[in-house]
Amino acid sequence: MNALLLVAHGSRRKQSNDEVVHLAEKLKKNCGEQYDIVKPAFLELSDILIPEGIEQCIAEGATSITVLPYFLNSGRHVVEDIPNIINRCTAQHANINISLSPHLGASDLMVDLLISTAVNSTLVSA
Amino acid sequence: MNALLLVAHGSRRKQSNDEVVHLAEKLKKNCGEQYDIVKPAFLELSDILIPEGIEQCIAEGATSITVLPYFLNSGRHVVEDIPNIINRCTAQHANINISLSPHLGASDLMVDLLISTAVNSTLVSA
Repeated sequence: MNALLLVAHGSRRKQSNDEVVHLAEKLKKNCGEQYDIVKPAFLELSDILIPEGIEQCIAEGATSITVLPYFLNSGRHVVEDIPNIINRCTAQHANINISLSPHLGASDLMVDLLISTAVNSTLVSA
Repeated sequence: MNALLLVAHGSRRKQSNDEVVHLAEKLKKNCGEQYDIVKPAFLELSDILIPEGIEQCIAEGATSITVLPYFLNSGRHVVEDIPNIINRCTAQHANINISLSPHLGASDLMVDLLISTAVNSTLVSA
């Protein structure tokens, strides 16, 4: 079974983390052909850190897990922290295929998403 | 003339801010029909803050400016800080139409972008 783990930074604001949880639920409804399981996880500031997210996927039967960093910039979290955590998880779960996706901001389609988002702008009155 | 102002948080890491500058350049190449001018600006930690970005657009001849928050979550920056700054800019430039776009994370197409990003994942060896 294939799992997708959506990894966000995590926030002290519960509402921000809830948005990621809801996005993962929306992803699950829309990618049924590619992924049997979709879970959210956070780099920090949450109970569901990346190792817990990976263990949740495995508990639901995942044999292959794709980790997708929900980050815009290729900062230290994307370049060092997440790969280091994934390396440790891979060593602990040698029978599971764990893949690391490029971070969201690296997508070639970001430009299209931005243009389509801007279409829904609202005039601000003086 | 229509301008698009891409507003990121801003980072102490020059490389992160440069990524936003490059993304704005890429946007400019790909949205010629909708926007004559595309500029980056930052909420903080940069020389180009939102008011400066708006002034740059006006200096290049913009009469209509769409401000697009390059943010994933609807936190305080998106809900309060950016709208407050835009309100002040609107009062200062009453002859310019300034519109505020939803933030990037609110896009209905985010799910598609995530799925397409995950396709390019790389297996991490144990």
